[in-house]
Amino acid sequence: MSDHTSRLRIRIVFDDGGVLGPGKADLLALIQETGSISAAGRAMEMSYKRAWSLVGELNALFYAPLVESARGGAKGGGAMLTLLGAEVLALYRQVEAASAEAGHAELARLNGLRVDMSGGK
Amino acid sequence: MSDHTSRLRIRIVFDDGGVLGPGKADLLALIQETGSISAAGRAMEMSYKRAWSLVGELNALFYAPLVESARGGAKGGGAMLTLLGAEVLALYRQVEAASAEAGHAELARLNGLRVDMSGGK
Repeated sequence: MSDHTSRLRIRIVFDDGGVLGPGKADLLALIQETGSISAAGRAMEMSYKRAWSLVGELNALFYAPLVESARGGAKGGGAMLTLLGAEVLALYRQVEAASAEAGHAELARLNGLRVDMSGGK
Repeated sequence: MSDHTSRLRIRIVFDDGGVLGPGKADLLALIQETGSISAAGRAMEMSYKRAWSLVGELNALFYAPLVESARGGAKGGGAMLTLLGAEVLALYRQVEAASAEAGHAELARLNGLRVDMSGGK
């Protein structure tokens, strides 16, 4: 038996080259959680510029934006997922979970083929 | 209905940070096909140095090497997958196929949420 574990990182590559992967999914989840693009970016140790650039990519990926932001205003901005954004994030998480489950036996076998660390640490 | 398609790119990340992803899998498949690390690298538009470096990573990933190479010799070198290499490649392809199948409905929905291109092109 092996003590090793592994996880899958899933990238969905669309026919025009657009990509939805773990980084963008985590950014969406953190925007949902924090209500702020810059707070979400900070939580991922990402520059403000990079976070906004990814949001720009995300908002161009589907028929309507995934993230709605209010720059300035009474509360000094803030951002939230649109209904579409929440659906896309949920679908991505479902693909992740379904993949890990479907590949479970093969992943266990691959973990078992790694260097045996049971003797040491 | 949407004419869009998408595909999954799967990265298996092991607990110690080792990674088996689409690039290494394709390199293994091409070594199997061509019998040569440098020919496999060329087919992927990869430098000789990069191909050998990836083979080095692959050979350190599991309990034994995945690629066996004979530098020099009568036939001027050549490389092949070990039995373990062939098994690991097959397992990776199975994880890929199982994931795509398991996420089929969600991927179809995501494709359907993309920009409708049916009007032009």
